[in-house]
Amino acid sequence: MTTEHAVIGVTGLGVMGRNLARNFARHGYTVAVHNRTEAKTKALIEEFGNEGVFIPAETPEAFVASLSRPRKIVIMVKAGASTDAVIEEFAPLLEPGDILVDGGNAHFLDTRRREKALRERGIHFVGCGISGGEQGALEGPSIMPGGPKEAYKYLGPILEDIAAKVDGVPCCAYVGPDGAGHFVKMVHNGIEYADMQLIAESYDLLRKGVRMSPAEIAEVFRTWNTGRLESYLIEITTIVLSHMDPSTGKPFVDVVLDQAEQKGTGRWTVQVALDLGVPVSGIAEAVFARSLSGHAEMRQAARILPGPTGGGLPSSFADDVEEALYASKVVAYAQGFNEIQAGSAEYGWDIDLGAMATIWRGGCIIRARFLDRIRAAYEADPNAPTLLSDVFFAAELSTAQRAWRDVTVAATRRGIPAPGFSSALAYYDGLRAERLPAALLQGLRDYFGAHTYRRVDRDGVYHTQWERLGHPEVRVDV
Amino acid sequence: MTTEHAVIGVTGLGVMGRNLARNFARHGYTVAVHNRTEAKTKALIEEFGNEGVFIPAETPEAFVASLSRPRKIVIMVKAGASTDAVIEEFAPLLEPGDILVDGGNAHFLDTRRREKALRERGIHFVGCGISGGEQGALEGPSIMPGGPKEAYKYLGPILEDIAAKVDGVPCCAYVGPDGAGHFVKMVHNGIEYADMQLIAESYDLLRKGVRMSPAEIAEVFRTWNTGRLESYLIEITTIVLSHMDPSTGKPFVDVVLDQAEQKGTGRWTVQVALDLGVPVSGIAEAVFARSLSGHAEMRQAARILPGPTGGGLPSSFADDVEEALYASKVVAYAQGFNEIQAGSAEYGWDIDLGAMATIWRGGCIIRARFLDRIRAAYEADPNAPTLLSDVFFAAELSTAQRAWRDVTVAATRRGIPAPGFSSALAYYDGLRAERLPAALLQGLRDYFGAHTYRRVDRDGVYHTQWERLGHPEVRVDV
Repeated sequence: MTTEHAVIGVTGLGVMGRNLARNFARHGYTVAVHNRTEAKTKALIEEFGNEGVFIPAETPEAFVASLSRPRKIVIMVKAGASTDAVIEEFAPLLEPGDILVDGGNAHFLDTRRREKALRERGIHFVGCGISGGEQGALEGPSIMPGGPKEAYKYLGPILEDIAAKVDGVPCCAYVGPDGAGHFVKMVHNGIEYADMQLIAESYDLLRKGVRMSPAEIAEVFRTWNTGRLESYLIEITTIVLSHMDPSTGKPFVDVVLDQAEQKGTGRWTVQVALDLGVPVSGIAEAVFARSLSGHAEMRQAARILPGPTGGGLPSSFADDVEEALYASKVVAYAQGFNEIQAGSAEYGWDIDLGAMATIWRGGCIIRARFLDRIRAAYEADPNAPTLLSDVFFAAELSTAQRAWRDVTVAATRRGIPAPGFSSALAYYDGLRAERLPAALLQGLRDYFGAHTYRRVDRDGVYHTQWERLGHPEVRVDV
Repeated sequence: MTTEHAVIGVTGLGVMGRNLARNFARHGYTVAVHNRTEAKTKALIEEFGNEGVFIPAETPEAFVASLSRPRKIVIMVKAGASTDAVIEEFAPLLEPGDILVDGGNAHFLDTRRREKALRERGIHFVGCGISGGEQGALEGPSIMPGGPKEAYKYLGPILEDIAAKVDGVPCCAYVGPDGAGHFVKMVHNGIEYADMQLIAESYDLLRKGVRMSPAEIAEVFRTWNTGRLESYLIEITTIVLSHMDPSTGKPFVDVVLDQAEQKGTGRWTVQVALDLGVPVSGIAEAVFARSLSGHAEMRQAARILPGPTGGGLPSSFADDVEEALYASKVVAYAQGFNEIQAGSAEYGWDIDLGAMATIWRGGCIIRARFLDRIRAAYEADPNAPTLLSDVFFAAELSTAQRAWRDVTVAATRRGIPAPGFSSALAYYDGLRAERLPAALLQGLRDYFGAHTYRRVDRDGVYHTQWERLGHPEVRVDV
């Protein structure tokens, strides 16, 4: 057993765990490192041991013994059964007040379950969203820690230290109790799906609509990245679109199979939103667009279906696409923030939406200039019902709507699928509508299922006796 | 204890259970009836005792004793904990080979759990979807029984007898093992959501787009109901839209609050589809449109957002809407049938899709003339990857697409939300696209997360080393 004392420990030294450990070490923290198989621990020490002070441990016991109290252990393993296994391995070795951090992409309901179980054993469990990929883990990720506030007292300063910084402000803040951190990370990923889908549709429209080459489109994105759309995803889109495949000399994007894959978090975002009754149509369309692309057999069968005959597009089309992309992106974020708001209300997390926008400004995949505007919107009105009606965004959308409609119309006329753009615009029009045809839905539901309805002109719940002459209405006590 | 022998029993005599019991009795079956509180049993006998032979039972014991073997008990209680409670009440009283039928809207995963537990106790458990509302239960519903095939031998003839008939064919067929029946009923309801949303959008477009009155729109729907759109939902739409509110003299649809409500099955359909990787964007947009309509606070805030200035619409607009409605409806059914196909594959149910279309032709809420076309499509190709490429539907969609695009464009130009129409059209265009921008998504995912990609020109899984000069590509063993 070692007598050295590490400030923090990382178990699970895959690429994310290794880079996070290096990030701690580079910031001057003595880091205990452990992996189920020892080879990874050794490799880390050999390759990067000179970056700081690491304490390699062969066994969980030695690992725990090397940590100063309260012990702070970051678990970086594949979400799911592995996480439970690691928790069960370490929990018996810990003492009341010690802190276990799950830095994986756990489902927030699992995190709630684990936090409750460990709380009963006196151990602080912190479900912690970490975004930024390999590079972010090493150079400064966006960190979304939930769990007991007590634990943040010890953990927060260290995490804020290694997080990305924007204008000197760390991209890390306490999110809320139990599953709040992983919930926010889940919604972050859902927004990421929507953001990427909108970028893909913009590319597709420029490619098919005005026959630009990938390299030309890369230039358009490069220009966009100097304005309000400035963001990591737009930046790397320019790189990917500029890249020529070394083996064929063709544009890289043309040799990649057009079947998108996905892990679970986008799907979860939609499933949870459905449970919470929050419309996240833009995120859903993005998830479905990926799964549609992967159904090779369906697509093969459907190739017989005809499209429209094209037509000219104005030379300003790329500018219009920028407006449509920006406006649709605002909708996606508005939907995601509404989901966080609803989750916070449902589970009593009291999440500060402005703080969430703040910690997403840097480090994470969706980092973008306009998150600062979202921060400002929620600082001005922490309980804003929708981001769309914020004075800044309302003005932007008002200006953008002409081009947004033109681009959606162009896609429809040309048969270029743009489910993200059109769904976002329908959401905008639905939300601002004075009256929605939902009244007819209520009438139909009352007709076939006696589901009742409310009225615009008086309180109460009503049912129409459709089977009786003149369809008399009765007030129903519920 | 009675010595009479009932052929079948119904426990839970709410309006659905009562009407189902009457339906059995009217068809000459001696029906044992039971309810937790006795008043409902008495009321049934008093009001409808002359419709057939009922054996009222005060206790579960007497109820079970009155049934001939194998006993067949239909449970008609609120889905959820009540179902488990009733099962636990009756199962100890049954013998091996007896049959418990759950006629409620259970989640198919609950049905799988219950079927397994009861199978181990020798009892057949039949999760049975029943659609048609109160009236259907009484006069002939569409019935979707799952569970052990052995049980269908005894139960099938009775259920087929009381089911709706179309061209002499009963709207009841064995669906498949364990949860298959409730799964199919769930998707039925999901399609119902989409169907209703499309009807609501059609109404809204005619109302706001060409300023028709509800009564005029009712006439349009009445005409549509004589053609290929002939269906129960279109029929009752004419009734609801024609109705004038007795207390104000205004159109009924104008006095109903435009906030749609929902129970769980539409949401489940989308959540399950996400798990199965099936794009059901049309059903999702319908579920989200309902939840959006209910967010009064968000809608209030968003009313400040501007819309476009309108413009004229051709006099043929209603005909175009008919085409758009029809085409979008085909997409919704195609998505729903794909979900059944995927569920059947996932759980090994071997569901006959043509038979499902057949039993939906009558009795249920989505009964429609065109289900006969769907039946024909799946009889011609039981494993068709998508309904859209069926020779009949492909031709219909080819014809409809001009008007479909025009209507979607009109909605976009006028700021009338039509998420169902535009999502369905984007799905059509997505599925038929030669290339999708999913290739760019894969490139971005590989860039920020080393998620790898496949190529169009050779097998294998690849990763581009984006951080290295020239971005060399490596083949990855997975």
